[in-house]
Amino acid sequence: MINIDTDRFLQDLHELRRIGTFRTGVHRPTYSPQDMESRRWLMRKMQEAGLEASIDGIGNVFGRHAGEGPHLLAGSHIETQNEAGWLDGALGVVAALHLARAGLPVDVCAFADEEGHFEGGFIGSRSIIGDLSEEEMDRSRNRYDGTPLRDALRDAGLAGLPRMRIDPARYKGFFEMHIEQGTQLESAGLQVGVVTGIVAIWQWQLRITGQQDHAGGTTMAERRDAGLTAVRLLAAIDAEFPRVCGERSTWTTGRIALDPGAASIIPGTADVLFQFRDVSMARLEAMEAALRRLVQESNRRERCHTELVEVHKATPALCDPGTMRALRGAAEALAPGKWQDMPSGAGHDAQNIARVLPVSMLFVPSIGGISHHWAENTSDEDLAMGMRVLAEGARRYLSGSN
Amino acid sequence: MINIDTDRFLQDLHELRRIGTFRTGVHRPTYSPQDMESRRWLMRKMQEAGLEASIDGIGNVFGRHAGEGPHLLAGSHIETQNEAGWLDGALGVVAALHLARAGLPVDVCAFADEEGHFEGGFIGSRSIIGDLSEEEMDRSRNRYDGTPLRDALRDAGLAGLPRMRIDPARYKGFFEMHIEQGTQLESAGLQVGVVTGIVAIWQWQLRITGQQDHAGGTTMAERRDAGLTAVRLLAAIDAEFPRVCGERSTWTTGRIALDPGAASIIPGTADVLFQFRDVSMARLEAMEAALRRLVQESNRRERCHTELVEVHKATPALCDPGTMRALRGAAEALAPGKWQDMPSGAGHDAQNIARVLPVSMLFVPSIGGISHHWAENTSDEDLAMGMRVLAEGARRYLSGSN
Repeated sequence: MINIDTDRFLQDLHELRRIGTFRTGVHRPTYSPQDMESRRWLMRKMQEAGLEASIDGIGNVFGRHAGEGPHLLAGSHIETQNEAGWLDGALGVVAALHLARAGLPVDVCAFADEEGHFEGGFIGSRSIIGDLSEEEMDRSRNRYDGTPLRDALRDAGLAGLPRMRIDPARYKGFFEMHIEQGTQLESAGLQVGVVTGIVAIWQWQLRITGQQDHAGGTTMAERRDAGLTAVRLLAAIDAEFPRVCGERSTWTTGRIALDPGAASIIPGTADVLFQFRDVSMARLEAMEAALRRLVQESNRRERCHTELVEVHKATPALCDPGTMRALRGAAEALAPGKWQDMPSGAGHDAQNIARVLPVSMLFVPSIGGISHHWAENTSDEDLAMGMRVLAEGARRYLSGSN
Repeated sequence: MINIDTDRFLQDLHELRRIGTFRTGVHRPTYSPQDMESRRWLMRKMQEAGLEASIDGIGNVFGRHAGEGPHLLAGSHIETQNEAGWLDGALGVVAALHLARAGLPVDVCAFADEEGHFEGGFIGSRSIIGDLSEEEMDRSRNRYDGTPLRDALRDAGLAGLPRMRIDPARYKGFFEMHIEQGTQLESAGLQVGVVTGIVAIWQWQLRITGQQDHAGGTTMAERRDAGLTAVRLLAAIDAEFPRVCGERSTWTTGRIALDPGAASIIPGTADVLFQFRDVSMARLEAMEAALRRLVQESNRRERCHTELVEVHKATPALCDPGTMRALRGAAEALAPGKWQDMPSGAGHDAQNIARVLPVSMLFVPSIGGISHHWAENTSDEDLAMGMRVLAEGARRYLSGSN
């Protein structure tokens, strides 16, 4: 059984929490001063742990183990959603650091912008597997304020740095620890989830074009109200999707922006962010077909035209049977009866790394299931248990003693 | 027939258009530097026209005629919606100025914030009839950025100035010229509309409270999605309102703000601006009753609670028969067969002035019906014709020769 200093692990997590504090959470948008401060903090911690630390041209922070292999790669992301929680991403990065501290032959990586502040999504973990072109980087903009990715990289001091690539031959697998971001573990009274697969997110934008007009002078018969078309289309999705979805599919409208957004003006355009998630490609394709039918039907009926724009479509990833066996064995040894297999409803960097390496993920409970919100939290006891199970699982997987 | 220098009238309109230019329109939010510059411009123009110019503690700009009565009051507003048109409000103010220039005994007023940048609505024309309390001013905030009204008045240099009141004994009536903000005149090939009454706007806020959560970790069964509740409620309003509305009722959702508004976060709250308009109190009350029923039904069915907040409820106003006769006579003399009676679907300062004086309004066509948008426009020919009909109508009304 491997020895882990869980006090120091928790202390490092709390130290990182003080960078960009927002209420009890943190605010570290990708490439913001707070985010860059957290990346520099991580590089210092890597060096203390004996790793060779570097940062690349997309902001990935990498800590390379100096010793003999076979190696593991471990990590997650360090930036956060806006005004969000202290553990999402940070937990997996600090846990990876403590695998190395515990003497395991582990390279640590914090992948840039898992949270998708910039168009394209997962630009850090996609870059490191060779799936991010220079052309896509030229096009990508910040989703909130429109800043070009190139400008953000330049302002963060990253422009011109080479982008690193994973050498698959160096690694036996990839490990990512993460909070569950749901209530399944908490509801069942469990401490650890061994992830079986990661859903893919298919993200869309609905761009609806009507005619901006005065809300009094324009009769109901004359108006082309982009907001009303959005409401009708979203209500149709709400009615239709249960007929095509799977048992654990989710779909979410995160933003409805009416322009200009004033009380007395008929909206001229509506901009809607809509996504769905599933682990099955067939299910994802069925949901896309339903969405396309509903948009087509809306365009037949409505006076405002809806353009369906594909923002990104990820591939669902299954976790590796060998890594899962190692983690299950570790969980049963350390937390007997307090763990379960489960899919991940959220997207994670591991789904990209899965294209070049066997991957595994370990979940710890989220209190109240709250995530992407500053109130996100996990008990110290569960954090420490997750860290111990991750380390023991990594040890077992490396030694082949599953 | 009164003599009007329509070239100079158009020239003044174009001069005002250069203050806060946005594309072919203007951007002069209430108490912004651009708005205050336009108010100072107007005071200079009033003085040139021989009027005694002043500005009061709510930003109303007033030009008092020095000669004998009976007097008329005329005017409109000078601030604009954000990035909106050059004629909305400005037309009625400049037209009033040219009534005075033409030698008519007219006081000119530009009422502050007809466009409702600040909570409460119509604070200028309500202040001047004594319907705006100090307490309401203490509470009112900018609807876009939350700035307290008191702070905005202080920054504009208006704090501490007395607020003027209309002396009803001084006036025989009030005249307001305005663009139609619809397509009725254009569609019928007409140049002038004599307004019969002004709709009241009943403005509401729907505040929906759910639970912010991660869009992947939270199953469809667990989530409390404030945005989805908003969509369902607005779809129910869309289905139900045609059953209770009148022939020319309108209802509009101008804003749907989901918080935090990101792709992968289930919205924790939704903030919706909803309004309806009609000239009939009975119809307005029936629409309110329907809205309350639908919110009650939503709260019974949904997992997110909706609070219905009354923002403001105006009183519909009918135009004065005497002023209407004068304007009809002038229209038939100057534009025979090219005018009609019509209600105003938009709210106007005249609806408040109607509580203390006989009022009338004159409409000119809006090209394509576009308003509250920078593309708003009216042909020079229609603007000049409207100005001539307004002046001749005012002359006839003053002389009693309808």
